Amino acid sequence: MRVVLPAGTTETALIDGISAAGASPELMAHTPSADAEILEYGEPTTAPLTPVSPSGCPTPAAITRAVREVVGFDVTVVDAGLTEPTGAATVDLDIDPGTDVRTPTAVPDADAIYDRAHGFGASLPEDDLLIGETVPGGTTTALGVLTALGEPATVSSSLPENPVERKRRVVDEGLAASDLEAGDCDGAPMEAVRAVGDPVQPTVAGITAGALESGAEVTLAGGTQMVAVAALLRHAGVDAALSIATTSFVADAAGDLETTCERLDCELTVTDPGFDRRDHTAMERYCAGEAKEGVAMGGTLSLVPDGKMAALRDRVETVCSRLGIDADGSPKEETGSNTTE
Amino acid sequence: MRVVLPAGTTETALIDGISAAGASPELMAHTPSADAEILEYGEPTTAPLTPVSPSGCPTPAAITRAVREVVGFDVTVVDAGLTEPTGAATVDLDIDPGTDVRTPTAVPDADAIYDRAHGFGASLPEDDLLIGETVPGGTTTALGVLTALGEPATVSSSLPENPVERKRRVVDEGLAASDLEAGDCDGAPMEAVRAVGDPVQPTVAGITAGALESGAEVTLAGGTQMVAVAALLRHAGVDAALSIATTSFVADAAGDLETTCERLDCELTVTDPGFDRRDHTAMERYCAGEAKEGVAMGGTLSLVPDGKMAALRDRVETVCSRLGIDADGSPKEETGSNTTE
Repeated sequence: MRVVLPAGTTETALIDGISAAGASPELMAHTPSADAEILEYGEPTTAPLTPVSPSGCPTPAAITRAVREVVGFDVTVVDAGLTEPTGAATVDLDIDPGTDVRTPTAVPDADAIYDRAHGFGASLPEDDLLIGETVPGGTTTALGVLTALGEPATVSSSLPENPVERKRRVVDEGLAASDLEAGDCDGAPMEAVRAVGDPVQPTVAGITAGALESGAEVTLAGGTQMVAVAALLRHAGVDAALSIATTSFVADAAGDLETTCERLDCELTVTDPGFDRRDHTAMERYCAGEAKEGVAMGGTLSLVPDGKMAALRDRVETVCSRLGIDADGSPKEETGSNTTE
Repeated sequence: MRVVLPAGTTETALIDGISAAGASPELMAHTPSADAEILEYGEPTTAPLTPVSPSGCPTPAAITRAVREVVGFDVTVVDAGLTEPTGAATVDLDIDPGTDVRTPTAVPDADAIYDRAHGFGASLPEDDLLIGETVPGGTTTALGVLTALGEPATVSSSLPENPVERKRRVVDEGLAASDLEAGDCDGAPMEAVRAVGDPVQPTVAGITAGALESGAEVTLAGGTQMVAVAALLRHAGVDAALSIATTSFVADAAGDLETTCERLDCELTVTDPGFDRRDHTAMERYCAGEAKEGVAMGGTLSLVPDGKMAALRDRVETVCSRLGIDADGSPKEETGSNTTE
C-alpha cells in the first residue's frame, strides 16, 4: 500500500471568501508545501507555518500523519503545481500552478499533465494505491469541473458554513470567461480542467488511470474533490472499478454522496474516527464540521483497524502537541493561521 | 531513523576506464536515478535499466532495498545533480551535475550547495540520520578532494582490480587545471570540491553539518567516499562526533581504513552480511570484490540485527529475482549492463 499525494496550488484560492478564511494569501500558498512536510517528517521543516484555522483546527495532514504513525505506509508526494518550496521529497512531473478559473484558461496544459501523470501511475509497482490531494481552493475547482461536465454539482467545504453561492458565482464567471456553459464539456474532461479546474485534478486522474491500466487497485482518498476526479475519469472513458474513501465529516455534510458515488459507479467507504470521544480542540473542530477532509485523511483512516482507533486518537493528540496545538485550542505563537477548502 | 540519499552525477565518470566498465555513458547517467527508484519502489520504475555489471553484480541499491524490506526505515532522496529523470520523489536543492575534474572548475557553486544542504540537514526533525550516496565516478572525486586537502589518499573501487593509477593521473590533471598542488586546499574544503570534487560531496557534508548542529546523530554510510566527506567536514572545522559505517568488502580492500578513521576522529562500523554462505551470483560477486559499497549499503546493513542476517540474505535473493537477476547470474534481457565506482 502506497499513499500518493499530489500537492498543488491554484490562484482560484486567492478569490476573497473562497478559501483560507482569515489567512493571508502569502501564507495560504505554503499550505500544500507544509502539508507534504507534515506527512513526510511529522512536522513542518522548511515551511513557515503549521496550517491551523483561527479556531484551532489543524490541517488534515496532522490526522493523516497520525494514521501513518499508527499503521505505517509509504508516502510519495507529487509536485502538482506547488508555488512555495517544500522540504519534502517530491516527484517532478513538470506541473505549473493553476491560474484563476475566472480567466479564459485555468490549466493550460491539462492534457499533457494527465499524460505525464498517467505514465507515472502506470510505472508504480504497487498493487494497492491510495491517492489524496492538497490544493487550497480545491472544492471550488471541483464544482467547476462537475458543472462543466454537466454532473450534478454539490461540493463540500472546509468551513462549517459552506460559501457555496460564492463558489457558484466564481464557477459561472469561469465558464463564461472560457465561452462555456454548464455541460459543454460532457465527454471532454481535460477541456473542463483546462477551463475551470486546477492542476491537481489531472494529476490525480492521470495517476489513477495509469495505475488502473497496469492492474493496481486505486482508492481515491477524499470527499467531493475526489467525486470530481471520478467524474473526470468516467468522462474519459475509464470504466475500471473505482473507490472513494472519505471521512464521516464529509459524508454527514454532503447528504447525497452515496447517490453520487452510485451514479459514478464508485464504491464509497466512510470512516468515523470517533473524534467526539475526545475533549481536544483539534478533534472538536472536526466534529463541528471544520476542515472535514483533505491530504488523504479519509482514505488513510480506512486503513486503521477498529481496535486501533483509540490509539489513533491518542496519536492525533501527540501530533497536535508536536505541531504546537494544545488540547484547549491555544495554538502556540509560531503556528500560522490558515484554513483551506 | 531516516536514510538520506543524495544522488548525483559528474562528467568525471565518463573518463575512459574510471567507471562503468563495459557500459555506455548514456546508460551510466541513469544509474543514480535507477538506484533511487530501486530504494524507493523496489525496482526501476521509469529508468531504462537495472544497474548490473557484466558479470551479474547488481547495484548496491538492491542490497539496501533488501535491508529496507527486512528492517524498515524512511528514505529521503536528495537530487544532488541528477542528469536523467527519476520516478522517485526527490528533495530539490537546486544542484547541477558536476563537470569533469580535469576542467578548471568541477563544482562551480560548491559553497552554495553546502549552505543549502546545511539548511536542509538542520531542518530534519530526526534524532538519527544515516546518509549515503550514489554518484558514478565518486571514488575518483573522493581521491581528488583527499589529495587537494593534503590527506593520505587511498580509495576503494567497485572493481576487483582498482584502476588507482588511472584515477591518480586524472586527479593530478584536475589539480593542474585548477592551478593547485596536493595539499593546497588544507582548511578550505569547498575549494577542494570546487576544483576536483563532485556535487554529492558538499551535499552530504552540508546535510551532515546541519543535522549535527541541530543535535542529531549522523552516520556516514559508505566507504572511502565517506572518508572524503569526513575529511571535508574536519577541514571545515566540524568537530562533532562522526561515524562511518561500511561493508566488510570495503574494509577488506582498503586495509588502512581503521587508521584513516582514527585520524579523522570517526567511529568505524564494519558489517559483514555473510554473503559467502550463499550460492547466488549477486552475493558471490560482492564476495569477489565487485561493487563493495554504495547507496548506503554498509550503513543500512549495520541496522540488521544478527538474528536477521539470514533473512536479509533471503531478501537479497527476492529483490534480485524481482530485478531479473537469477541465482546463476544470467541477467534477463531487459536489465542493463552497468557498473559504477
